[in-house]
This record gives sequence, structure tokens and C-alpha cells, in this order.
Amino acid sequence: MKKVLLSALLSVCSCFAMAQKTYEANWASIDSRPVPNWFEDAKFGIFIHWGLFSVPSYAPTARDGMGVYDQYSEWYWQKWQDAKSKTSPLFQKFHNRVYGTDTKYQDFVKDFKAEFFKPDEWAKVFEQAGAKYVVLTSKHHEGFTLWPSAQAWNWNAVDVGPHRDLLGDLTSAVKEKGLHMGYYYSLYEWYNPLYKQSVNRYVDEHMIPQLKDLVTRYKPDVVWTDGEWDHSSEVWKSTEFLAWLYNESPVKETVVVNDRWGKETRSKHGGIYTTEYDLVHSGNADNTKFTHPWEECRGIGGSFGYNRAEILEDYATSAALVHILIEKVARGGNLLLNVGPTADGRIPVIMQQRLKDMGDWLKVNKDAIYGTRAWEKAPAFKKGTKLFFTQKGKDLYVLTTEWMDNLSVDGITKPQSVSLLGFKGAVKTSMKGNQLTIAAPNVTPATIPCQHAWVYKLEGAGR
Amino acid sequence: MKKVLLSALLSVCSCFAMAQKTYEANWASIDSRPVPNWFEDAKFGIFIHWGLFSVPSYAPTARDGMGVYDQYSEWYWQKWQDAKSKTSPLFQKFHNRVYGTDTKYQDFVKDFKAEFFKPDEWAKVFEQAGAKYVVLTSKHHEGFTLWPSAQAWNWNAVDVGPHRDLLGDLTSAVKEKGLHMGYYYSLYEWYNPLYKQSVNRYVDEHMIPQLKDLVTRYKPDVVWTDGEWDHSSEVWKSTEFLAWLYNESPVKETVVVNDRWGKETRSKHGGIYTTEYDLVHSGNADNTKFTHPWEECRGIGGSFGYNRAEILEDYATSAALVHILIEKVARGGNLLLNVGPTADGRIPVIMQQRLKDMGDWLKVNKDAIYGTRAWEKAPAFKKGTKLFFTQKGKDLYVLTTEWMDNLSVDGITKPQSVSLLGFKGAVKTSMKGNQLTIAAPNVTPATIPCQHAWVYKLEGAGR
Amino acid sequence: MKKVLLSALLSVCSCFAMAQKTYEANWASIDSRPVPNWFEDAKFGIFIHWGLFSVPSYAPTARDGMGVYDQYSEWYWQKWQDAKSKTSPLFQKFHNRVYGTDTKYQDFVKDFKAEFFKPDEWAKVFEQAGAKYVVLTSKHHEGFTLWPSAQAWNWNAVDVGPHRDLLGDLTSAVKEKGLHMGYYYSLYEWYNPLYKQSVNRYVDEHMIPQLKDLVTRYKPDVVWTDGEWDHSSEVWKSTEFLAWLYNESPVKETVVVNDRWGKETRSKHGGIYTTEYDLVHSGNADNTKFTHPWEECRGIGGSFGYNRAEILEDYATSAALVHILIEKVARGGNLLLNVGPTADGRIPVIMQQRLKDMGDWLKVNKDAIYGTRAWEKAPAFKKGTKLFFTQKGKDLYVLTTEWMDNLSVDGITKPQSVSLLGFKGAVKTSMKGNQLTIAAPNVTPATIPCQHAWVYKLEGAGR
Amino acid sequence: MKKVLLSALLSVCSCFAMAQKTYEANWASIDSRPVPNWFEDAKFGIFIHWGLFSVPSYAPTARDGMGVYDQYSEWYWQKWQDAKSKTSPLFQKFHNRVYGTDTKYQDFVKDFKAEFFKPDEWAKVFEQAGAKYVVLTSKHHEGFTLWPSAQAWNWNAVDVGPHRDLLGDLTSAVKEKGLHMGYYYSLYEWYNPLYKQSVNRYVDEHMIPQLKDLVTRYKPDVVWTDGEWDHSSEVWKSTEFLAWLYNESPVKETVVVNDRWGKETRSKHGGIYTTEYDLVHSGNADNTKFTHPWEECRGIGGSFGYNRAEILEDYATSAALVHILIEKVARGGNLLLNVGPTADGRIPVIMQQRLKDMGDWLKVNKDAIYGTRAWEKAPAFKKGTKLFFTQKGKDLYVLTTEWMDNLSVDGITKPQSVSLLGFKGAVKTSMKGNQLTIAAPNVTPATIPCQHAWVYKLEGAGR
Repeated sequence: MKKVLLSALLSVCSCFAMAQKTYEANWASIDSRPVPNWFEDAKFGIFIHWGLFSVPSYAPTARDGMGVYDQYSEWYWQKWQDAKSKTSPLFQKFHNRVYGTDTKYQDFVKDFKAEFFKPDEWAKVFEQAGAKYVVLTSKHHEGFTLWPSAQAWNWNAVDVGPHRDLLGDLTSAVKEKGLHMGYYYSLYEWYNPLYKQSVNRYVDEHMIPQLKDLVTRYKPDVVWTDGEWDHSSEVWKSTEFLAWLYNESPVKETVVVNDRWGKETRSKHGGIYTTEYDLVHSGNADNTKFTHPWEECRGIGGSFGYNRAEILEDYATSAALVHILIEKVARGGNLLLNVGPTADGRIPVIMQQRLKDMGDWLKVNKDAIYGTRAWEKAPAFKKGTKLFFTQKGKDLYVLTTEWMDNLSVDGITKPQSVSLLGFKGAVKTSMKGNQLTIAAPNVTPATIPCQHAWVYKLEGAGR
Repeated sequence: MKKVLLSALLSVCSCFAMAQKTYEANWASIDSRPVPNWFEDAKFGIFIHWGLFSVPSYAPTARDGMGVYDQYSEWYWQKWQDAKSKTSPLFQKFHNRVYGTDTKYQDFVKDFKAEFFKPDEWAKVFEQAGAKYVVLTSKHHEGFTLWPSAQAWNWNAVDVGPHRDLLGDLTSAVKEKGLHMGYYYSLYEWYNPLYKQSVNRYVDEHMIPQLKDLVTRYKPDVVWTDGEWDHSSEVWKSTEFLAWLYNESPVKETVVVNDRWGKETRSKHGGIYTTEYDLVHSGNADNTKFTHPWEECRGIGGSFGYNRAEILEDYATSAALVHILIEKVARGGNLLLNVGPTADGRIPVIMQQRLKDMGDWLKVNKDAIYGTRAWEKAPAFKKGTKLFFTQKGKDLYVLTTEWMDNLSVDGITKPQSVSLLGFKGAVKTSMKGNQLTIAAPNVTPATIPCQHAWVYKLEGAGR
Repeated sequence: MKKVLLSALLSVCSCFAMAQKTYEANWASIDSRPVPNWFEDAKFGIFIHWGLFSVPSYAPTARDGMGVYDQYSEWYWQKWQDAKSKTSPLFQKFHNRVYGTDTKYQDFVKDFKAEFFKPDEWAKVFEQAGAKYVVLTSKHHEGFTLWPSAQAWNWNAVDVGPHRDLLGDLTSAVKEKGLHMGYYYSLYEWYNPLYKQSVNRYVDEHMIPQLKDLVTRYKPDVVWTDGEWDHSSEVWKSTEFLAWLYNESPVKETVVVNDRWGKETRSKHGGIYTTEYDLVHSGNADNTKFTHPWEECRGIGGSFGYNRAEILEDYATSAALVHILIEKVARGGNLLLNVGPTADGRIPVIMQQRLKDMGDWLKVNKDAIYGTRAWEKAPAFKKGTKLFFTQKGKDLYVLTTEWMDNLSVDGITKPQSVSLLGFKGAVKTSMKGNQLTIAAPNVTPATIPCQHAWVYKLEGAGR
Repeated sequence: MKKVLLSALLSVCSCFAMAQKTYEANWASIDSRPVPNWFEDAKFGIFIHWGLFSVPSYAPTARDGMGVYDQYSEWYWQKWQDAKSKTSPLFQKFHNRVYGTDTKYQDFVKDFKAEFFKPDEWAKVFEQAGAKYVVLTSKHHEGFTLWPSAQAWNWNAVDVGPHRDLLGDLTSAVKEKGLHMGYYYSLYEWYNPLYKQSVNRYVDEHMIPQLKDLVTRYKPDVVWTDGEWDHSSEVWKSTEFLAWLYNESPVKETVVVNDRWGKETRSKHGGIYTTEYDLVHSGNADNTKFTHPWEECRGIGGSFGYNRAEILEDYATSAALVHILIEKVARGGNLLLNVGPTADGRIPVIMQQRLKDMGDWLKVNKDAIYGTRAWEKAPAFKKGTKLFFTQKGKDLYVLTTEWMDNLSVDGITKPQSVSLLGFKGAVKTSMKGNQLTIAAPNVTPATIPCQHAWVYKLEGAGR
């Protein structure tokens, strides 16, 4: 209860912070709106890919020689159908063996039941992971919606399958925990005949009414679009929609959007910029210096939707995930880490384990993550580095993803104090010019504050 | 092959017969178009109710005390849901017992497979029944379409369920036999959210494009609408659609429509007038004298959709059906007799039996049915009569639904000859004024031409 | 209620009629027991083939060029599996198309639900057909039992599928109508591993306990075995079982058995002799003169189990069935006419129609059927004959399956009177020596007593 | 390949070790057979509970207030049916909500498909966990067998459900990795009517032939019986079976059995003694000093069969599992740790994770586990202790489940050397009388050899 109040209060505060400006339906005006502060402070969100694809919940894996994108189980329908896709034979082989050649994708509806779905338990898992926001697939490219959308009659989770407003129920539970709730929404739908016949009619009669219904009824903090690549933002009428979202919608003050609004918009227009498995739209994020607010999304394994073909070695370890979070935050970004629930409504326990381990780490090291920004003087990012930096106010945080007996930091003011987060003992340091050298304290398995990565707080070093 | 040619030829001929007039979108203009001749000559058509309702294929029967309308299995969804319906408890009891309380109507999709559907065998059954046209439910009030309608994505027989264009395949087979093919189409859809939110948007975005697609792709000879009662024809934009149908559509010369185009139109506007189990929209057809072309539709039992709860006593006998046909034709109407196929795609054999018996009767007595009109001088229809009359050119036909050793006909010219159709021996008659008395010939089970009803042809008596 | 009393009374009476003899476990002794009188008086019984095979309910038909045996849907499992069977490719084609190659026969269990099964309605249909006894497949060659047999755990209709004692419930309803109830029982089971490993253990541990349980719990009037051909009656321990049945079982006085007790027993040992679609074990029944009580069994179509592939032309007409009954009775036999219920528990309406038509005929002509015996002086049976004879006491019945204006009967005493059953008028006859000539009376469709066949009663002509 | 050879060789060796004695069917003789050495050396096995219960895969959890036994999902059928069970209402509530009141246990068969089952991957998981043997439920109390048992026709995984010899395929894969393979087998079957009618006939006709078939065809290294409590070993004919197993079966030299052979046999007769979640048949194992070879079995969570209701907190951590293994081994026992595969044939990834963590720990510390025995001079076990001891030959191992900066060991000979397993640096020790004090070396996260527990090897200290 307290949390809800706090969240309400925060949201009132951010209202005041936002200008009462009216936005126009052009990119210059739309782009002039700042990303609401809550987002950059939040750092860590949970992505959820849930839909009809959760029924077959299959994709080939890295062990099959697949790269990024090829391992996405949520692309089952398209990959299986698309004879040109290199993964098509693997999807077909699986489909024919398990379901038979006469089973169509729509036939999966009967096995999507969500009978174990407990939104409160999910929300608790996310909260304990230290996540501050959640983004759920309201509708993926398959067009199937998790809320009772009038535009998707008999193709939504209330009319068919689970017969339940999955999106609405999860939204309530997540907000009850004081977390922000947002929705992924695919602009295009692979096989919607209206889309295939006339994208203009699709946008006017289907997409825009559907998006507005979603926003109006469920009041999201994030509108995370995707599936924009086939058409320009003009065709999608994106700026018109965003002007409505920023001027008139019930979430005009607080909502965050991303950069996927037309084939020309990624890393250029909209709200936050996005990367995906370290890829930007046409290249690798490692080579990119982002100054604009941004967010990396990725699965724990190689897929967003649940993939039953993944075994332990396909899942990132807890250490790797902590390291990814550190890297993204140190580079000014957020991490939107995905979980893929099962068709019967559970978050696989291995994913619960990974999230708990991140939460355990964050409990010790939260000061170095939430509300921080990239340290402006940090050395240019180099792949393989084990040393990261964040700043909050005057304090600097040094994060090491590998235990180092000694380490040095250049270009700082002498800190008022240096401590190892979560460790009670003193830390020996020496200052030479503006270079600080830190000697790791003696720790034993009984005294070590956490696993996977360790943080030195340099009080006042960022003055 | 010959039949197809003949049919094509006939359709060319009827083109010539039709005026090249342009119709306007108002009833005066629309109503001015004559009903194409083929329809009144055809007399006997087959109605087919097939859809998702064919999966539960249940309704209470007359033995449960039900009246007309209450026995319609195709109303399963609505009756079961509508707490105000008096039949609702019976549908609920059935549903909960057989499917369980958690099963929704949409869940029936998985059991609609049509795996035994053989359109050629169906068409042969209809042809041998002596039917001249077929009217299939392209879409009933449930909104589910039997063809791949873009407006009913994932709610049609190709995307889900049978995964087959049932309508297209049957259309080809029926036309191949030289029969006319038409479609029932429900204007409203009980639970379509677009319809419930805005009938105007529904009409513009859903209904009109869907109907035009149906007409354009499958070129029906009959457009048999229904479900019109909630709104005026203005709301449905019926006259606009009919103007398009009559002026621009590929079937503008030949198509026949009915009178169900708005809550004010039955027995007033459109094409043929319709009765249903002898009911007109607000009353009993027995009291009605039709001068306009009309058609009675009814099932063999008490339901249009297949009803598994019906046992033998719920089915009309072959004799009763022959009598109904005679009565309708003698009164100037057509009979559109319904069959309800099963979800696995078969016409129940008892229905095949009834149709064959009608076909056997028609083979003997066809001259008294096809191409005839009501005899203008026939006595006013009285329920219970066993004596009926039809006329074709100068010939008069006397049809008796009960064997009479003697019978008299008033008000006729002395016939050039009198014969019992299908019987080789002579028939004794005597003429007194303009009253003809006929003495039935001696027949034995070995020489009787047919069962159920017998026809005397009075050559030239209609001069 | 009255009927039950009557039936109980009759069964008491027949007890008195039976000798209190003890039978030994050898054929000489077993065969010395007379067939209880009720059986030969009953003439007309209903066979019911119902089981897991009712789920696929498919076999190829005569239209596919199939002969007797090849059209039996209850052989689905074996025919589909047996590569040597000539019908195997047709079954496989059907199975793979409709169910897929991965579906095993046992998987049909989930679709056997009998949700429409109303035993009282079934019993009423049988009673109105004029049948006097019913024989239900308690277990066919598949081994699946319709009662909760301890020997068929998880392979019976209570443990799996319908979850109901189908056999018990039907038995109660049939007996309530005063009809006799019996069971078909297959000695062998195609795929029972115990049978395949050791027929002796199968007989001792499985078959005999199962049969005794069936008899003890449900007290059948008929034990109709089958599937005996692989082994001699010694292996099956048939005489031991029959000795128990005749000496100790609760039905020892009244039960009727057939001749299928070992590969050497047909038409030789046991109770009544059996034919099947006019075939005896190795030949055609047309050439056989039976003096022993016997019974012909056959379907209305070409299959015993329900066959969805059968269309109207595959079903015998009512006329044909009446003719078959007459032929069998005139030759001293019974007719056990089969119906094949659906997996959802209904008797197809076309079968109800056929049974009703037989009942209608029997209502008029019952005196010429029930309780009669073959007329000893009747001419030798010739295929194609239309003239048949039965005798009851001193009266002779002449049955004609085609209307004859005149007919003659040789070798009789002058009858005290001659009448056409169901017809009120007089019948003209003349006697010359011991030849009687009958002239058919004038009948019209209004006065004819029945369809399909007609009976003259010659009172006292059999003295 | 090499592994198989090695395994074959070892099994030859153990043949020589075994006396060629003939055993009699009485406990004195049976008990005189020593447990084959391989078993006590193996220490760590994997238990697998897989069956029809894996379909609902539900039981209430400790969070519902359940104790041991109440959380077993493999008891679903019995608990749900048994009105006297305190857990019955929870099982019923679940069942009715998810499956409906009309669904019987047998209906789960259709959803047991094992479509993801890859026996090689399973075997690899077990091998990498460091397990030396595997025990699979060949048949649990439900009576359903995972191999094509002739005694369980249509109630086994080949006839129904997966249509695959799950047991045979896993056996091959496990043996290929050089691990021992054994089977759990339930003597009783809750609902087998033969068992309920006559336990004697059940034992003779069903159980004994079935067990012998299992042993003869699949040659298990372990026969792990259960479900013995309703009857004495005399009723089960256990000693007769064991005499056959020890004298005649193909595995007479190598097979290991447990102590569950009759209601009087646990911890008294048979082979190894068993505990289950630290319980012996009537009490807590913590108070028990075992001198006989024994084995603790338990799940990773509270259930043996997979339980979808279990969330992360219901699973033991990797640390806890390592500690359990240490405790059991230090007390002379084995650990048989259970995994519960899913109905689609996967080992849940969280279980893979736990097994991998144990394997990682064992890779470092294997010398302290495999082939060791309890140290005879170890202090009496006290719950909560963090210090454990094992001995192999002259070497002593000190295992600490909590990091201790200093620790002492009493009653030993001065060791030739002391090392921390997996750590390269020296370990400082001091000897005072026969008490050794060890000072933990300085370790950092970069140099620590393993997590969860650490082992000092005291070379020669056990002389």
C-alpha cells in the first residue's frame, strides 16, 4: 500500500517536472519532449514475451549454429512459413514431427491456457530482482493480443485460449508493487489480411484504434513499439499518434516511448534508443557511443519467447547477466532483460533463479546502479574490459566484474572515502596526482559481500 | 460438361431478358427490378446451415416443448448466453454437462474439421433430389465465415478449423452439376465488438467489404440476407449495396435477393419475400395471400443447423415433405428445404433419404412443379386441403396429397386429355358445365407410379 | 412395470420346461441341451456393434469394390495394421489423412464419450421395431470392454473414454421393455500380449474369469461368442465353460449360445447355428438347408460398426430388410439385424427409420412371424423367389415380397378361410386338388395394409 | 566407447569378487549376500520420477503448509481420490479448476507425449553432475509402465501416450555413458482391480511376471522396490523373487536391491537400507546410526514427480544440496537425488543447474567422496554441524560446509601433508597430541577452488 502511494507521489512529482507544452505531429516537435526522468533512473526492467508462440515454444539454438534473430521462438509462425528463411527447415522439421503437417499456427490456441498464471507471484519475482519496470508483449507480430481488443476479435486471450485478461491482471499486480508497467506493441502483423491488402486501412481501422484503446484502458508507463521496418513513420502515422499520446492521453506526462516508429526512425526519433542483443538496427552496439537515453533488450537465453529446446548451456549465467547490467548502466543505458513465460502461465524456475541472483547483487550494490549516470570521464568502452564506472551526484562508483587485487582509476578528485559496497572493513588506497590506486581488502567466503562483481564507492570523487 | 454449357447458355439468355437499366440507391428503384425468371421456375432449392454451431449441434426439440425458433441449433451461442431466453437453461445444462463450464463457444473451433466433406457427393445428392438451387450459410450470426474472408481473420474455415475453403469448394461442385448457387449472409454478428461499439463502422469497415468480396469472388445466384432486424435498411446501407449489386457486380443480371434488408423491409422490399416454418415476420403464412414471388424455408426437422438431439420422430416424413413442396408451389412459392451437415462434413443419411424420396417423386411429377405458376382460379387456400393446382401454359395440374377414388375440379375448360402422371392406363372423367370429375384408375402396388401424392394432368384445361 | 413382471413370469415358465439335467464338459453332453424355446419364437433381434472402433467409424464400402468382411469398420485396427490385407492401403490412407501417422488406435479412447447415450430411447427404438432380443458387443476383438471388467483395467468404458457402464445401463433399459438381452463376446483379442504369449494363460487368467464375470453380473439371455477361429474348442476350454453356464450360472435355464466355440464348431456344436451376410463359415447359406435352430446376422449397410463412409446407397432399403426377415423366418431362422451406434452414443436416424419401417410392417403381419416355424412342405428355397411360407399350429402363412395379382399354393389342406393380413375386405380363392389359387383383392393407396410385402393367412391349411 | 569397455570390465571384476553361492528363498539366506561394492563406492545417484503423474504435475507445497509426503505430485491420483487425505481438498480444487470434474486420471494419457525427450542429453546431464548411477520409475503406484510390459497392456508408454519405450531408450543412453542403470518398481498398484480382488493372483499373474520381464530384458544394476507396506514379504513372495534374482537372473552378480520387500522388511532385510527426506520407515534418520549400506533419496524440491506449483523458493539451493551429499557420504550413505522430468520429456533447467553445480563441486572434491567410507572415529553426528569426515584408505578428508578461518580435528595420526582440494597454495597446520589445527589459507574470489563447501585432505591421517 505504501509503495502504491509512493509511486503515485512520484508520478505527481514528475508531472510537475514536465512542461505543459503541446506537441505537434512532426518529428522535430515530438523529439523535443524529454524522456521522463524515472526511466533513466530505473536502469533495470523486465521484458516479457508471452503469446501464442509460447505454445510451441520452440526455436533452434546456438548449438544448432544459429545467430541472433534465428533463435527467437516468437518468430515461429513466420520462420516456419518463410521458405526463404535459413531456419525454415528446422522449424518445419520440428513442426511436422511434433504437431503434424495439418496443424496450423492458429490451432495452438487450444493449448494456451495460462492455468498456472499468478500475476502477484510474477510481480514479486520482478520486484525481488530489483527491476523497476516491466514491459509485456501486448501484441506481437502474430497479431494475437493479451487483452480483449475489439480490433482482434477471437484473436485475443479473453475470447480464445486462456479466456482471461492476462495483460490487465498483470498490470494490476505490477503496479501494486510500485513498479512501472509498459507494453510492447507490434505495428505490423505478418498475416493480417487487412494489413496485406491495404496498410492505410490497417493503420486507420485497426492499429491506431487498437493502440489508443490499449493506452486509454491500461495507462502504460512505456509504449514499446516494434515491427515498424516495412514502412516509413508517415505510413504508420506515428507522429500523429505520438502527438495524441503526449498531448491528450491519460499518460501524457509520464509515458516513455522508444525509437521504433518507422523504417527511418531507429536511433533518430521518438523516445529512448534501443539495442537488441547488442545490435542496433544495422550494426553492433559495441562500436556506438550513445549520448541519448537508451536501452538494451535481450533474453536470458537466445530467445525472447520461451524456448523448450534450450538447455542449461543456452542460458546466460547469473554472473554474465550481472556483468551485462553493469556494462549497460556504465555506458548510460538501461537493461530490459527478458523472461519467456510458459503457455500454462509460469516463469520458468531457472529464470526466477537468474532474477533472484541479480536481485541479490543489486541489494548490495544498488547505490552504484539506480539513479546513476555514465561517468563522463570514463575511458572509451573496450570490449573485454572488467572495469566500469557510474556516477551519482558527486560520488563515483567503480565496478569490477572480475576480482582484482589492485586497481587504478585516473582523472578523479581525491575521494573523501573509499569503501567496498557491502563490506564492513576498510579499503586501502593511495592517490598519485589524479590517479587513485585501490588495494582489495582480504575477504573470505564468509565475509565477501556478493558474487559476480564488486563495487568501490569513491565518495566525492566525481566533484 | 453439357450441363455446364446449358447453364451458361441459360444465363446468357436471361441476360438478354433483363433490362439494361441502372438502379438507384432507394427502394422504389431497387424494387422495380423484376426477380430473374430462373428463380420462380426452379421451385425447389436446398438450404444448408453449416458453421461452428455444427460442432455442438444441439438444441432442445419439440419433445422438450419447444416452438419454432427455440429448436434452432445455429442459435446455440446466443441462446446459451442469453439469460432472458426461455431456452437458456436447457442450453446451459447441455453445455455444462458435455463441455464443462470453462468451455467457450470459440473453443469449438478445434472440433470443426470437415474431414469427410465431399462436395461432389453433396452436389449429386442435391441434383438427385430434384433441387435447382442451393443456398449455403456463408456466415451466420456467429460471424464465422466458410470462405477465407479478410474481414474475419482467424474466424473463418480456412484460417481455423477445417483449414479449407468450404464455400468455394461446394460452389464449384454445385455449379458443375448445373445448379444455381447462392449464399445466406447474416448482416449482424451477435458478439462482434465492432458491431457492438459502432454499427456504422461495422457496416463500412466490415460488412459491406465482406459482402462485396463474397459476391465478387464467388458470383452467387442468390444473396440471402438475414439478421437485419436490429436496424433499418438505412443503417445497413442496403439500397447502396443493392444498387452496386444490380448495376456493377458480376452477377447483376442474374442474382436473386430476398426481403431481409432492414427491420422495415420484410414482405415489402428487396427481391423475393420469405417465410420460415410458415411464419412471416409477424404472423402465420397460412393467412397470407402472396402475389409477389416468395419462398418458404424450413428444416427437415425443427432445426436448420444439425441437431444431434433430434430422433426419428423429430424429422418430417418424406410424405410430409412432398406435401409441403406441393402446397408451396401451388400457392406460387418456392421451397428452400434445409439440410444440416455435421462438423465432419457429412449430410446425415436420413436427410439423404428424405431428399432421395423427394427426387423420386419429382422424377414422376416434375411437369407439375418446375416452371409452373399458381393457378389463378384455384380455390382460396384452406389448411388441411388435400387438393392443389398448378398451371403451366395451357395445361393444368391437379395434385392430390391423399388418394381419392373420385375428385372434382371446378372452373375449367374441358381438357383435351386427362392422365395420371407416371401411369400408363387411361383415366375416366366426366365434364358437367365447367366441372370436371375424375375417377381414379385401378392401381396396385405393382403399377402405382409413386408414393405420397399423385398428379392428374389436364391438358389444355387452363386455356 | 407390467412388462417386467411378464418377462419374469415367462422366464419362470421356461424354467419348468427345461430338464434339470447336469451337463458334462464334452460336446455330446453340451449339444444335448435344447435351445430354449423363447429364441426360436422371437425371430427378430437387434445386434449392436459399439466400441472404440466407433470413433474412427470408417471402412471402405462396396462402392470401393469391397466384398463382405472388407467393409467391417469394427476391424479397423487389424485391417489398418495388417500389411497383407487387401484393404490395408485404404485404411492407412484414411488414417494418415484424418489422424496422422503418429496416432495409434488406443488414442481413439479420448474421443469415445457417449455423451448422447440414452439407453431408454434405444430400448424404445428396438421395441418399436418389433425386435424381441438385443445382442450387444460386450467386447470385440480389440479387447475393449463396455463394462468395468477387472480383466480389462484401463481398457474399458468406465475407466477410460465414456466413463460409464454402457453395457449395464443398456441392459437395464432393454430388460425394462421386456426384451431379452444378450452379449457378443470375442474369445480372442488381436493384440493382447498375454494372448500372443500364451493362449493357455490368456484363457485361464483373462478370458474365462472375464466371461464368468460378465454372465454373473449381467445375467444375459444370449452369449454370442466369436473370434474363435484360431484355436480348437479344447484350447478355449469351451465345454468347461458351457458346462458351468448350463449347470451353475444364474442363467442356466434360459441362456442361448451360438456355435462359435472353436475352429471346428461352427454349424456343429453349441447352441444355435449362425450365418453372417448369408455366409456360413465356408460357403454360402443359400445352398444350405438348416434343420437346427439358426440365425442370420448382418448390418443394415455393409458394416456392423458404424461407418461414416457409407452414404444412402450403401444402406439396404426398408423393403429389402423386410424381405430378408421374411426369407430367414420362412427358412426356419432368426434375423439378428445390426445397428452401429456413434461414438457419442446415438443410433443414426437412418437406422431408426429402417427399424421403424420394419416395426410398422410387423405390427400388421406379426402373426406370420413370431412363434412360427418353417413350413415343412414349402418348396426348396430358390434365390429370387418372391413367395414364402410359415406355419403356426394349423395355420399357414403365405408371404409375398412382390405384389402378385394371382398366386397358387400347392400341397395344402383346404383352408377354413383366407385373408390378407391388415386388410378388411374378402379375398377370392379357388381350390383345385390340394392347390389353392388366390386372387389379390383390389387395394388402393388408401386401403393397402402395408408396404414392402403382404401376407395371406390360410386358416387351418397346415393341418 | 572406452567408457563402455571400462564398465564392462568393472562388472567382470565384480563377478569374481562375488561368491558363487546359491541363495535360498528365506531372509537369512537372502540377507547373507553382500551389497555389491560398486554401490557403496558410487555415493551419488540420480532418481527419476516420470509417469502419468507428470501430466498434471501438481501437488501442494510447503508454502501451503504441507509436510513431507504431502508434496508428492506422483501421488496425485490417490490423494485426489482419497477423501480421508488431508491434502485431498487441495488436489480436488486444482483438478476441478484445471481439468473439470469429468476428467479422470486415465484421461491424462493423451497429454503424455515426451516429444522433447532426448535420452543422450539426459545421460550427459547426469554424467556431468558426477552421478554414478540412475534409478528410473519403471512403474509407480499408478501401475503405468514406462516400458512395453505385457502385464500392463494399454497402460504403458508404448501402447498409449508417448508411444515410445522410454525406459529402454534411457537405459541405453545411460549405459553408454558408463553409469549404472536401475529401476524403481512399485509392488502394489492403487487401483488395479486384480490387486484389489486377490493379492495372491496379482502377485502370481501380474507382479512377478512383470518384474522378471523387466529384469530379463533390461538387466538393471538396481532393483528399487516400493509400495510394499500393505503386505508382508511372504504375500509378495519377495524371497522367492530375490532368490531367482540372485541365482538365475542375468544380473545375479551385480544387482543391488533395497529394503522395501514387505511391511516388516525396512531397515531389516534385503539389500541397502533406505531413508527418504531423512525419514526412515517410522522415525527420523538424524537419530539413526547406520552401519549397513544405506541411501537417502529426496527431491530437489518437495516432490519427486515434477510439480509445476513449485517456485524458486521451493527448490533446495545448490549449496544445500552439496551439504546434503556431504552429510550422507560422511555418515556412510549414498545420496539418490531426484529429478522430475516434464510430460514433454525435459529435465527442467533449474534441475540441470543444480546438478551442474554439484558436478562442478565434485570435479574439485571427488577424492573426498567416491570410494570413501565414513570415518569410524568421527564424532557422533549432530544436526547443524558444519564439519564432516570421510576416509579412503589411509587418507582422511575434512569437509566444511561453512568457511572456517580455523578448525581442529581430534584423534588422528599426524598427516604426511594437508592440502585444500583444488587450491594450489600451502595450508598451515599445527599438531598437538592427536589434535590437528588447520588455518584456512587466504583465498580471494579469483583463487577460491569452489563454492558451497571445502575439503582438506589429510594424507595418511587415517592410518
